[in-house]
Amino acid sequence: MQQASGKVLTLESMNPCVKRLEYAVRGPIVARATQLEKELKSGATKPFSEVIRCNIGDCHAMGQKPITFLRQVIAVLSDPSLMDSDRYPADVKARAKRILEGCGGGSVGAYSASCGVPVIREDCAKYIEARDGIPANPENIFLTSGASEAVKAVLELLATGQEGADQPGVMVPIPQYPLYSASISQYNLQTVPYYLEESDNWSLSQAELRRAYDEAVGKCKPRALVVINPGNPTGQVLRKEIIEDVIRFAKEKNLFILADEVYQHNVYAEGAKFYSFKQVLHGMGDAYFKEMELASFMSASKGYMGECGFRGGYCELVNMDPEVQAMLYKQLSARLCSVVMGQAILDVIMNPPKPDEPSFAEHEREKSQVLGDLKLKAQMATETFNSIPGMRCNPVQGAMYAFPSIELPPKLIEEAKAKGMQPDAMYCTALLEEKGVCVVPGSGFGQRPGTYHFRMTILPPVEKLKNVMQIFKEFHESYVNRYK
Amino acid sequence: MQQASGKVLTLESMNPCVKRLEYAVRGPIVARATQLEKELKSGATKPFSEVIRCNIGDCHAMGQKPITFLRQVIAVLSDPSLMDSDRYPADVKARAKRILEGCGGGSVGAYSASCGVPVIREDCAKYIEARDGIPANPENIFLTSGASEAVKAVLELLATGQEGADQPGVMVPIPQYPLYSASISQYNLQTVPYYLEESDNWSLSQAELRRAYDEAVGKCKPRALVVINPGNPTGQVLRKEIIEDVIRFAKEKNLFILADEVYQHNVYAEGAKFYSFKQVLHGMGDAYFKEMELASFMSASKGYMGECGFRGGYCELVNMDPEVQAMLYKQLSARLCSVVMGQAILDVIMNPPKPDEPSFAEHEREKSQVLGDLKLKAQMATETFNSIPGMRCNPVQGAMYAFPSIELPPKLIEEAKAKGMQPDAMYCTALLEEKGVCVVPGSGFGQRPGTYHFRMTILPPVEKLKNVMQIFKEFHESYVNRYK
Repeated sequence: MQQASGKVLTLESMNPCVKRLEYAVRGPIVARATQLEKELKSGATKPFSEVIRCNIGDCHAMGQKPITFLRQVIAVLSDPSLMDSDRYPADVKARAKRILEGCGGGSVGAYSASCGVPVIREDCAKYIEARDGIPANPENIFLTSGASEAVKAVLELLATGQEGADQPGVMVPIPQYPLYSASISQYNLQTVPYYLEESDNWSLSQAELRRAYDEAVGKCKPRALVVINPGNPTGQVLRKEIIEDVIRFAKEKNLFILADEVYQHNVYAEGAKFYSFKQVLHGMGDAYFKEMELASFMSASKGYMGECGFRGGYCELVNMDPEVQAMLYKQLSARLCSVVMGQAILDVIMNPPKPDEPSFAEHEREKSQVLGDLKLKAQMATETFNSIPGMRCNPVQGAMYAFPSIELPPKLIEEAKAKGMQPDAMYCTALLEEKGVCVVPGSGFGQRPGTYHFRMTILPPVEKLKNVMQIFKEFHESYVNRYK
Repeated sequence: MQQASGKVLTLESMNPCVKRLEYAVRGPIVARATQLEKELKSGATKPFSEVIRCNIGDCHAMGQKPITFLRQVIAVLSDPSLMDSDRYPADVKARAKRILEGCGGGSVGAYSASCGVPVIREDCAKYIEARDGIPANPENIFLTSGASEAVKAVLELLATGQEGADQPGVMVPIPQYPLYSASISQYNLQTVPYYLEESDNWSLSQAELRRAYDEAVGKCKPRALVVINPGNPTGQVLRKEIIEDVIRFAKEKNLFILADEVYQHNVYAEGAKFYSFKQVLHGMGDAYFKEMELASFMSASKGYMGECGFRGGYCELVNMDPEVQAMLYKQLSARLCSVVMGQAILDVIMNPPKPDEPSFAEHEREKSQVLGDLKLKAQMATETFNSIPGMRCNPVQGAMYAFPSIELPPKLIEEAKAKGMQPDAMYCTALLEEKGVCVVPGSGFGQRPGTYHFRMTILPPVEKLKNVMQIFKEFHESYVNRYK
């Protein structure tokens, strides 16, 4: 008989991959922010009156209002008796009717097909076709609970359980959105980090990709390449030529491309334009477009809509081996389906009001307002950071983040090391404790050794972000000076 | 340079665990049902006018109407301007207000905390306290996208990557809901099957648990025990003494208990009563209640509400090592949060209208209607199956399924084997092709060798289920006779 005392699951006996996993966007500094909020609520005195959360791309939490049209459709889906009221315009009802007709029993409470409601997959395909000017097949699109679920599902396919030189490797940008490193840990894959070029506005260079690849071979077997465009946490928008370079490299090395394109609506800088990997592949001819394996991810959480809580996302697969795709779809069936309301809100994003529909004008106004404000705030953040001695920030061309570098004095770095902390984490902790501003240290995303950064979202409303910028102006100098 | 042709991901080079995974509830027979529906829609002539889906516990798809109160709250969450209309009663608005106040920026479009909106975790705790009469701590409850996500998250913790005698094993009932076998494959764990006693109404026996355990030791290391109560696919409701036996066995062998209790509202048989594992643990004294590790799962998809598409679920952890729990919560943070609308609908289920509230009477009426119909249909299914020569069915005491055994003639079994099919799969395929009734073969859930079953949901409306029962009466005899 086995010993009947002691826990079954301990740190020693649990899944080591889960233990290793790190996810800085919700790490200890963010936990501390939550605690500070609680303390403030219960009347504690702090040097600030509120915690300003610039740590996560959580649009509505930062005060962005939901887009009316989207929510009206969701309300009708929730309570279809609203279809008979004159509360909502005809285009809202038409969208809701179409979605309900695609649902089992005409209810969003029914499971959908594993890959999503068929009409919604069709609307995603139409959106992609209109975006890229090339055909998209709904059968190659699957709907997920946020883009995160899709990214994880594709990464999981790569995991073979092999170790050593055969362990599958995934090339990931540094800095990166830590979903990638977390999932790579979870599935016992190997990270093959390639650095983005800070001096070239966080662009990618073939030389660096090659260096990273060559260094990895022998330690693991690189099989996939992740690109985030527009960049998270770095905010760059890749030029078409850069994407072509990346594709050529991936073809040469036979890598599966994961294109995280969830910020495709978030492009602000003059002259910057979003090119999907699929479209660029197409432009490079059949040797690329008919052969290279690509998964592109999109989300309802970003863009102008920012509906994070709905967990809506899609993945389009290009040239995936049909047998592998069948296995992926089989695996998706074991979780039954992604949330139907998330699929539904994604549908309305893919199929917004047309110019001749009653909701068009208001929808356009709201959309422009959000994207216009983000553009303004992207400029404000870039300019302010660059005006502070000891800080430097590439232009925020897209996405929702500034990722400035900060010069930290040697004494500060030593003190952090003595405390077992990353120097930028110490900086961000002080900023939170003293000023109530919550940002994520660059070490959570990865950065070149000896450089320090943080990621700040540009989501707070314009006036509040102005305050945040003022806080940085004061805090940075005063904090750094303590260590001079 | 590596060879630049051929796919990166092929059946040979992909994750072997994903390849192995099977999920019969959405397997080939169900795919065929979808195809038949398409064919009917496009005007094809079949021996039936519609496909009746009795393959999955998808309540609304089978015509069950959403509970009004739940959906009214969701509508207000979708479009908070409905708060100012007189369309909805005060209790609806109060629930919505409370949830919105718990959401970032007062919007269900914000990410929630990784474990769920705090007030919703509190409401789950209050529900559990009222159910069991013992305290529940919201900190030990995490909210998920359906119970499936929670089950997977806990199983994943057990995966250590070890092989052979050290490979972690999970004891699973046979027949079982295939989420378990699928997830066990996915995480490279070992299934340790124990048979439910068909002759004792699908109950569990200590002797069988012991046999299964002893047979597994040496081939793997059993670390956890899954119990589904009320049973899926078997519909039994466990007596308190049986649960005590199971707990004693789990304590002796130091097993982590996973209690799938998603059908806790679905108990129909006279004298049957739902006992939660937590409550039974408590009754067994501190040596059990203060020590044994337990995870209990609940869902918004089943019960009287059947809101499958919302993907709402919770897991309560009892006695999990706090360090392991922290790791689990860290892992949950990498998917940011579960869908907030799913959390919200779960909240309203946990916190239904009270007797003094305006929606109480209608809510009770709707709830009783659904549960009353299910009770009627449970009896109807049991009686009809037992009236058919060559079929036998344990009483459907709870959940949503009948799992009758079918006697199949040797000639049929031989023919199936010659075709490389499971005999019960051949039976179910014929039933679908000839009669349009879709059920899942017992082989998809596991069964004792030489026995054959299928799982039928009792979800079709009363009149439709009567037809289905009539179809079985005719089909079974006629089909089986062809092979005599």
